Amino acid sequence: MAHDKRHKGSNLGVTPQGEDFSAWYNELVLKAELADRAPVKGAMVMRPYGYRIWELLQSELDRRFKDTGHVNAYFPLLIPMSYLQREAEHVEGFSPELAVVTHAGGSELEEPLVLRPTSETMIGEMYSRWISSYRDLPLLINQWANVVRWELRPRLFLRTTEFLWQEGHTAHADADDAMAETMRMLGVYTEVARDVAAIPVIAGEKTPGERFAGAERTFTIEGMMRDGRALQSGTSHYMGTNFARAFDITFQDATEELQHCHTTSWGMSTRMIGAVIMAHGDDKGLVLPPRLAPYQVVIVPIAGRDPGAAGLVAAATDKLTSECRAAGVRVHVDERDASPGFKFNDWELKGVPLRIELGPRDLASGSAVLAQRVGAGAKEPVSLHDVAASLPARLDDYQGALLGRATAFLDDRRRSTDSWGVFADGVVGGFVDALHCGRPECEDDIKAATGATPRCIPSDGRPEEGLCVRCGRPSAWGTRVVFARAY
Amino acid sequence: MAHDKRHKGSNLGVTPQGEDFSAWYNELVLKAELADRAPVKGAMVMRPYGYRIWELLQSELDRRFKDTGHVNAYFPLLIPMSYLQREAEHVEGFSPELAVVTHAGGSELEEPLVLRPTSETMIGEMYSRWISSYRDLPLLINQWANVVRWELRPRLFLRTTEFLWQEGHTAHADADDAMAETMRMLGVYTEVARDVAAIPVIAGEKTPGERFAGAERTFTIEGMMRDGRALQSGTSHYMGTNFARAFDITFQDATEELQHCHTTSWGMSTRMIGAVIMAHGDDKGLVLPPRLAPYQVVIVPIAGRDPGAAGLVAAATDKLTSECRAAGVRVHVDERDASPGFKFNDWELKGVPLRIELGPRDLASGSAVLAQRVGAGAKEPVSLHDVAASLPARLDDYQGALLGRATAFLDDRRRSTDSWGVFADGVVGGFVDALHCGRPECEDDIKAATGATPRCIPSDGRPEEGLCVRCGRPSAWGTRVVFARAY
Repeated sequence: MAHDKRHKGSNLGVTPQGEDFSAWYNELVLKAELADRAPVKGAMVMRPYGYRIWELLQSELDRRFKDTGHVNAYFPLLIPMSYLQREAEHVEGFSPELAVVTHAGGSELEEPLVLRPTSETMIGEMYSRWISSYRDLPLLINQWANVVRWELRPRLFLRTTEFLWQEGHTAHADADDAMAETMRMLGVYTEVARDVAAIPVIAGEKTPGERFAGAERTFTIEGMMRDGRALQSGTSHYMGTNFARAFDITFQDATEELQHCHTTSWGMSTRMIGAVIMAHGDDKGLVLPPRLAPYQVVIVPIAGRDPGAAGLVAAATDKLTSECRAAGVRVHVDERDASPGFKFNDWELKGVPLRIELGPRDLASGSAVLAQRVGAGAKEPVSLHDVAASLPARLDDYQGALLGRATAFLDDRRRSTDSWGVFADGVVGGFVDALHCGRPECEDDIKAATGATPRCIPSDGRPEEGLCVRCGRPSAWGTRVVFARAY
Repeated sequence: MAHDKRHKGSNLGVTPQGEDFSAWYNELVLKAELADRAPVKGAMVMRPYGYRIWELLQSELDRRFKDTGHVNAYFPLLIPMSYLQREAEHVEGFSPELAVVTHAGGSELEEPLVLRPTSETMIGEMYSRWISSYRDLPLLINQWANVVRWELRPRLFLRTTEFLWQEGHTAHADADDAMAETMRMLGVYTEVARDVAAIPVIAGEKTPGERFAGAERTFTIEGMMRDGRALQSGTSHYMGTNFARAFDITFQDATEELQHCHTTSWGMSTRMIGAVIMAHGDDKGLVLPPRLAPYQVVIVPIAGRDPGAAGLVAAATDKLTSECRAAGVRVHVDERDASPGFKFNDWELKGVPLRIELGPRDLASGSAVLAQRVGAGAKEPVSLHDVAASLPARLDDYQGALLGRATAFLDDRRRSTDSWGVFADGVVGGFVDALHCGRPECEDDIKAATGATPRCIPSDGRPEEGLCVRCGRPSAWGTRVVFARAY
């Protein structure tokens, strides 16, 4: 893993979260070398350390997609403008964000081409060619790709003009099968957020105002960041027959009758890296869950000035590194020409879960010092003899501790209320479960008053009815809605 | 792996290679469901079966990149037009192929943005920000990405307006280090072509007329297709300080003097799938090397009409499938409602290396029938008891046999001559090693007369001088040049 070696004079500190969370985030993304601003406004460069997190997330997602019967394919970036116009809500939703190619190969194009903001239209067109019989269904395809949405208020990882994602697109014979797929993939996202990113999320359905443009139903997972705001971290959509009608995706059923397919789409993006940063990070920098950490363990050899000791430390470092690799641990040795203190701070900034300090004094007693990025026993002496073999279990424990910490944080900042005062107070730095009338005007009113929006109607919500927390009209949805300020 | 199930009435045959190689190729790409034409001219959809080959190639390349010290990152798709103009040869070379975004987010852009045709410029700009000291070097980054080059004569996999590739971009302190990198990556490509794609290639340097726009030196690997034409399958470029000067990529050396970096770039693309199709395929369809085959083994259960027999066949199929998976083999069971004959033809068209037919009669004797897609003993009875365990070795043998066959084909169709008559005859369906004067006018003349171009000056060429095969002037390059008609 390449990393910037210009440590001299660099300032590792970041603004404290409590002082300015937004400044903390922006500084950290740059200083931890996760990403850099590109020379085009709103565009981002994912640097190797940040991109490696994405690669690890990709492989976790991709394995689960394949295990659930999906295959990958690749569809074109450039889509005829007329395709988007075939689905009225879809074009209305995405028009303001489109980037348009008007010239290519030295001449003006007959029809402008848009850079895909999402691929329902192009994939819909291809599906209409590929599907003809019920035997072709379900068709379960995923794509790893870049998409372009022109953002007016860009933010590294969270909103950039181009981002990387996966978009699954499936076609089914009926509504039940398509809805089962929609919920299955929401489940995959929930599991990946929890078990890989160590982020507990609330899974549920969006209210109509927050639906994907063109969807019948949109489901989401919502994570809580350390400022109490929500981050939508993955979505799964049931399209009904909207796109099938727009693109003529039909099949002959077993009785040879022609029917429209029911389709779904679902996506998770590089935004998830923003979620990891904000759900776990602290004033010292990143806190990475081991399953997404480019380096799970960093070894810092501390040679001192005695050349004899340096040789012993180097030999012990090599041995320990091999043992870590053999134990299946992603390990890195920091051999930079810098002070131990600088290195400790740097790897804390970069969120490495475990650090092993290896000095001549420890060596003499057959031990090393193990430091955890977060958690109780900050530093403990460990035996060099068996420390490597203990690392996988230690990393699992650490992963579990991060999930536990994030879960406690979410539980602590999520409240249920019927009082408007408590509601308005609760969405400043937390989530509030409240009964709501379901009227878009009332959602707008709440947003204007508090900045909070309905994040989702939780899938596991207890059946409940009553009066709207804001307007007092009868509640909708049959259960409480989660409100929060959101990224 | 999803595949089209509309087998009824579909015509599996393709035009014979000898009749029309180009028609054979186009029909095969579509019928084997590797790719489809997209609704935008020149664009391609990579279908799951073709994309899976790309995924397998990616993982082979990516592992080797990481083993040689490279890390991945991601840079923006959209590049300011002015960036390309900073390197004169670069912009001249790529201008005719650019696609340009002029509008985004509902308004006209101040400066048009081009869709990257390659990323030297954007990455050069970022390297100038990231590199300041000799301690930052070498910087070894690779990117997996889509690129756009507007092609007037598109051809699936070979020339499409958008394609997928990897592009490595590295910066070094001096020419020696950069040249060593250039040759190291050419070596990686040579190895992947030979050991993964089973394609023997000729590695060497391009003459100036065929150099990458902006490079000091361009190296290539050239494979021979089954019509005797050459396909450039990967390139590695030494840029000297051209891009470093254009983008101000400088560093302070150990004596604190400011110096320009020496840079390289190297790429391999989805074009390699075209190489696999054309280097191995035959009149029955694809012939895939096992290391790139989505399915290495397909099991065809042949149940017959006896329900009792069907149960036995199904049980034996399940057992064999598990054993294949346990042996690390990519196996697929064809359970479609179609005749065995149809299935055999279909999997031959799709180039699956090994096929196992499992019928009640074979079962009774504890055996199955194993068929190889190409090679001597077309079909042989095998014992169900140990066939799964034998598959990895059989697949290795098959992989070796394909490489052997392709090597023999190349050797047979590659000749060395000093006679113009033999030269002109040899480039019709083969490669010719000849002495050449090195003058661009003479290269043009040869192309006009024969359609052949200089493919490369082979790295392993024996030192030799003499007279140009075409014009009789003294030869250049110190060795023979390989000429061929090329894709």
